[in-house]
Parts: sequence; C-alpha cells; structure tokens
Amino acid sequence: MKTSYNRIAGNSVERLAALSDGIFAFAMTLLVVDLHVPPREAIHSGPELLRALAALSPQFLTWFMSVLTLGIFWNGQQAQLNQLERGDRHLTWIHIAFLFVVSIVPFSTRLLTDFINYPAALICYWFNILMLGAFLYLSWRCATRGGLVKTDTPIEISKAIDRRILVAQGLYAFGALLCVFDTYASIAFIVLVQLNYAFAPRTFSRLG
Amino acid sequence: MKTSYNRIAGNSVERLAALSDGIFAFAMTLLVVDLHVPPREAIHSGPELLRALAALSPQFLTWFMSVLTLGIFWNGQQAQLNQLERGDRHLTWIHIAFLFVVSIVPFSTRLLTDFINYPAALICYWFNILMLGAFLYLSWRCATRGGLVKTDTPIEISKAIDRRILVAQGLYAFGALLCVFDTYASIAFIVLVQLNYAFAPRTFSRLG
Amino acid sequence: MKTSYNRIAGNSVERLAALSDGIFAFAMTLLVVDLHVPPREAIHSGPELLRALAALSPQFLTWFMSVLTLGIFWNGQQAQLNQLERGDRHLTWIHIAFLFVVSIVPFSTRLLTDFINYPAALICYWFNILMLGAFLYLSWRCATRGGLVKTDTPIEISKAIDRRILVAQGLYAFGALLCVFDTYASIAFIVLVQLNYAFAPRTFSRLG
Amino acid sequence: MKTSYNRIAGNSVERLAALSDGIFAFAMTLLVVDLHVPPREAIHSGPELLRALAALSPQFLTWFMSVLTLGIFWNGQQAQLNQLERGDRHLTWIHIAFLFVVSIVPFSTRLLTDFINYPAALICYWFNILMLGAFLYLSWRCATRGGLVKTDTPIEISKAIDRRILVAQGLYAFGALLCVFDTYASIAFIVLVQLNYAFAPRTFSRLG
Repeated sequence: MKTSYNRIAGNSVERLAALSDGIFAFAMTLLVVDLHVPPREAIHSGPELLRALAALSPQFLTWFMSVLTLGIFWNGQQAQLNQLERGDRHLTWIHIAFLFVVSIVPFSTRLLTDFINYPAALICYWFNILMLGAFLYLSWRCATRGGLVKTDTPIEISKAIDRRILVAQGLYAFGALLCVFDTYASIAFIVLVQLNYAFAPRTFSRLG
Repeated sequence: MKTSYNRIAGNSVERLAALSDGIFAFAMTLLVVDLHVPPREAIHSGPELLRALAALSPQFLTWFMSVLTLGIFWNGQQAQLNQLERGDRHLTWIHIAFLFVVSIVPFSTRLLTDFINYPAALICYWFNILMLGAFLYLSWRCATRGGLVKTDTPIEISKAIDRRILVAQGLYAFGALLCVFDTYASIAFIVLVQLNYAFAPRTFSRLG
Repeated sequence: MKTSYNRIAGNSVERLAALSDGIFAFAMTLLVVDLHVPPREAIHSGPELLRALAALSPQFLTWFMSVLTLGIFWNGQQAQLNQLERGDRHLTWIHIAFLFVVSIVPFSTRLLTDFINYPAALICYWFNILMLGAFLYLSWRCATRGGLVKTDTPIEISKAIDRRILVAQGLYAFGALLCVFDTYASIAFIVLVQLNYAFAPRTFSRLG
Repeated sequence: MKTSYNRIAGNSVERLAALSDGIFAFAMTLLVVDLHVPPREAIHSGPELLRALAALSPQFLTWFMSVLTLGIFWNGQQAQLNQLERGDRHLTWIHIAFLFVVSIVPFSTRLLTDFINYPAALICYWFNILMLGAFLYLSWRCATRGGLVKTDTPIEISKAIDRRILVAQGLYAFGALLCVFDTYASIAFIVLVQLNYAFAPRTFSRLG
C-alpha cells in the first residue's frame, strides 16, 4: 500500500515544471527588488540623478550575471524535463532541492554585490552555481537509471547532457579560481562562459 | 439556477493546481527573502565575512526544515489532485484554506528562527504543520465522499493517503512534544521524519 | 492588416488564466508579508511571545477577510473563464484591469488593518471589492455580447452569473454602510456574506 | 552531439509562456508593494486619512502607466508566442532578455514616481519601454527567420506585428521627447497612446 502511494506521488512532470517556472520567475524578479532607487533628499538635479544611477553599475554587473545564471539553469532543467516520460518521488525531491538552490541565487547575488572585492563572496556565489549543476547532474542520473526518460531519446542526447554539465562546471570552477588574482577577473570569465552558452552554442560546440 | 452556477464553479483541477504552484513557489522563495546579507560596515575581511555567514546557520536550519515542509505538502497535495477526476466548490475552498496555511509557513519559520529557544515558537510552527495536514485530510474526505476521485483509483490508494497523513501527523506531534526538553530536539526529530518521507520512502514503508 | 493583428491578439484564455493564477497567488502571499514577527528585544518569555502574537489578531481578522475576498473572486473569474470558447482583445484588457484591482487588495487590507476604526479605511476596502465585482460583471457582458461564450452554455448560467454578482455586491454595499455605526460591524457582516458564499452555497441558493 | 543538445534545448513555447506569466504577474504585483500605507502616527481623523491617500495620486499615475505598459507587452508577447510552432535556443534567450527588461519595470516606475519632475527619470522609463519593444521586435525576426512560425500564419500578420512595434515605438519616442517641455506632458501622451492601443484598436487601425 505504501508502495502504491509512492507510485502515485510525484509523477507529474507538468506540475514540477509549473512549480519551477514560478520559482525561477520569482527569483529573477527578486534580483530587481534589491535595486534601490536613490534617496530623494540626496538628489538635486538631473545630472546628479544620472550619476547616482551610474553608481549602481556594480549592482548591475552581478545582477546581469545572475540573470544569465538563472536563464542557463532554467534552460538546462527544461531540456531535461522535456525528455522525461514521467517523474517519480526521487526525481521530484532532487528538483525540489534544485529549486531550493535556485531560490538562494538572489541571496548570493546580493552578497557578491555588497562584497564584490572579497574572494569569499565570489566563492559563495560559485558554490551556488556548483550546487545548481550538481543537482541537475543528479537529476539526469536519477532519470536515466529510473527509466523515466522517453524511449525515443537517443543515447547521444543523454551523454551530451552529462558532458555539458561537467564541461560547464569545469569552466565555472576555473573562473572561480581566478579570484585569487582579482574577483572582477572571475566575474568577467564566468559571464563570458555564460554568454557563450547562451548566445553562441555553435562556437562552443566546436570547442567542446 | 443557483445550483447550475455551483455546478460550473470551482471544477477546474488544473487552475487549482496552477494557483497552488504559484503559492508554493512564492512561499519557498519568501523564506530566502528573510535571509539578510551581513551589513557592509560590520565586515572588514574575508574571514569576518565567513564568520558572519556561519552565524546565519540557525536561520539555515529552520529554513531547511521549511523547505522540507513545503516540499512534502506540495507533493502530498499533488498526489491528491492527480487522483481527481474533477473538482467542486467545496474541494476548491478546502484547498484555498490549505493554501492560506501554506502562505503562513514563511511567517512561522521566521518566528521560530527569531525565537528558536522558545517552546511557544515551536508549538506555533507545529500548529502550522498540523493545519496543513488537517486540510489535506479534509480535502481527501471531501473528494472521496463527493465522488470526485477517478474511478480507476484503487481503494488501497485512498486508504494509504488517509493513513499516511495520520501517521505523519502523529510523528510530528511527538516531535513537537520533545520541546518540553529542548526545542532543538524537536527540530531534529521533525527534520529526520521529513527526510525519511522525502528520501527514504522504502525504509518508511517497512515501518508503517 | 491591423484587424488581423487584433484577431490574433489576446485570444488565449489559457494564458490569461495563468497570468491570473500568478497574480492571485502573489496577492494572497503578499498579505502574509505584512505580518511582522514581534521584535526579539521586546520579548523575554514564552507567555510574552504568545501575548505579542495575540496582539496581531486584528491583523489576522482583516487578513482572513482578504483571503476570502481573493478566494471568492478567483473562483468567480475561473467560473467565467471556464465558460469561454476563446478570448479577445477587449476581454483581455477587462481582465488585466480586474487583475490590477486584485493586486491592490494587499494595500487596502493593510490600510484597513492600520486604520481599523476609521470608516474611511473601510470604505476604501469596500470600493476595492466593488471594483472587483464591476470588472467581473463587465467581463461577462463583454463575453456574452462578443460571442466568446461556449455555445453549449445554457442561458440560465449566463443570467445566474450576472445576478450572483449583483446580489453579492448589494450585500457588500449594505455591509459597508454599517460602518456608520461601527467598522467592526461592517467587517463582521462582510465576512459572514463571504463565508456564506464560500461554504454554504446551498443555503444561499434558497435565499437568492 | 552538441547540435542534438541544442535541438532539444529551449523548444518548449509552453514553458516559456509559463515563465513569462510568472514574471509579468510578479512585476505587476510588485508595483503595488511600493505603495505605502500612510504612517499611523501622522493620521488623526478620517479626512486626514483621505488627504494622505490623495497625496499618493502621483504614485497612482505612474503605477497606472506601468500596468498599461506591462499589459501591452504581455499582450504583444502572447500574440507572438501564439503564432509559434515551436521555440529554439536563440528565441528562448531573446525572451529571457525581454523578461529581464520586464522585471526592471517596477524599478523604473519607482524612479519616475520619486523623480517625476526630472526629465532624466522619464528618459530612463522610456528607455525601458524602448528595450521591451526592441526585444519583441528581435524575437519576431528570430522566429520568422528561424522558421519557428506556424505555417498557416499569413504573411500580413507577420508584417503587421513588425509595423505595430515600430509605429508604437515611434509614438513612445515622440512622447518621451515632450519631456523637454514638461514630464507630465510626456506621461499624458504615453498614457493616451497606451489607452488607444488597449481599448480602441479600431480607432488606431484607421490612423496606422
């Protein structure tokens, strides 16, 4: 009877996707909530207002990186869920853990914005990315081993998903290491890797 | 005519699921909003930053418990909705009440985080879990009695859903009682029960 | 060509429903964000904590009323959308205006909580409910006149939807008027009407 | 293999729509979060409360404009997605960039509310609208060139979508220019254009 309960629990990929879209949407919008309008009493002219907005640019940098991070992992999760015939309890919990880590992204972004010169803050941000990758990797292992993948999915796709996560995480880890020299070097490298994934998949496929 | 109005109202399980996913996504992300980045003026070095982050660990503990709570009840609600042929007005209102209680979880979590040594705070948190269970139980009674369940759902499933809620609530109540000794003992017990439900359903089924 | 653009714009009832579910979910959860945990420095014992929580009860009252308000109008909107064959541009904009008014509910709730003895605050809250009803009424007029309703919807359903909105708004207006005597009388009357709509549709149908 | 990965990534228009609905719902509701209830200690009578609420009216104006902005672009995006047979990676990233700009709308609205007499704030708001239009335009180019559009979509529709965006952006740019004279003139002009798009498409089609 317990077994039959487990059989009905957590097998709707559609609702998992809906919960994920909600959490991603929320996390993306929360990033902006931390962007504060300059206080009215400090501004006395148009140029002052523009200068105050320009002073927000480090915030803008980390925020841009986080939108890329969330966009990439939203895409990555979607690519996996699209290949699934059905879910199960284990897979659902891996994705809840994944979404838990997604919901931390606004916090790590804020931490990195406030302490942009501290390697410790950058390592925290990178650890967040690492956990995102780890849970997506785990999710795909769980799906392939549990027979949840659509039967018409070719084996190369399955391998491509695995390899893609590992290569990307390798590059992110290298980027994080650059913080020994300069945290901005790390951020620049990670953003470039992300832009490459987002906008130039063909270029990357030649490297991969 | 009124009767026919009631016939068309509240019978879309899909929209109920969509509203639920939105509220769960929101509640899960709100937990993180309460996690504050340490103030910039208090931090002067990397080790200080890491110490300040480590000081957030009791917050992390209650937060982790709440993600488990929300994950478990999201799963529980989904398992029920999956078995429904259609909804009706009564069922819809039970679920709105359920979602109302879901939306309180970030508040109880915050309360428990701020007053983690107060048994009163733990009892509030437990009461929140109790209400979640009560409404899910009520929802299933309403569905089975109202003939809303899919006809191919075996009777054992129906009994398993009932029993699962009752056993789990019994364990949570026992955990809450432990706060007479120590609130951390309560939290540890509740988290262990939750982890067991989430990750080791087979182990549990041997106990149940 | 413009005409053909208008023909493709705004005709997806599904996406309108999804946007609505998001906004309702958000508005319901926002109500709780305004519920503040008592400050740690003011509390020195368990009984003090419970007293501080009990002091939140007027907040709880208005909040409960708003959950009922949102639940009722979510149901009402859903009942309408379920009857639609398709949407069009006009209907979409009526619903965006409706959702705009939905998003104000947390604000009016907060206003009423903070100024619970002021008839002016209660009138603002009632005006919010009135606008919700007005847009739903407008939406149904637009749907029936624009031929957007499913052809198998009997004419009595259509009349029942109209009458239901008018009768309910009449009762809410009467409740709001009671604030001349006491704002709590208004709140009590409105909550009773809402509970009646939510939980005892059969009783109401005998009155209606 | 990389190519096959790209083939499966980002091709679900449904999930893109769900993410969009979440972000639009969130952005619309966030507008209201910035609307603060007058502080209790400053209010001593009903008329004072009404005066304090009336003092919020410039906030109301910019907020109303932003609801129109979000409503128009939600409709515009929906009209495009409805015409798509499938998505691809490039289209998905254009829409993530679009949603990124959507999530900035509450920030620009706040900026304009706080600095309503500063042309610089109005230009920022207009730039936000411009970016929304630019990404929607880019999205449609990407869809038509990438063969993602449903085969039964007539060529006039495709041209109408392009022209509509260009004409509207031309009008918004003209409105923004009016801020040389007065920022309120700009806001009034932009709101009129938006109302025209929202409620009187036939009138506009005679002009277009």
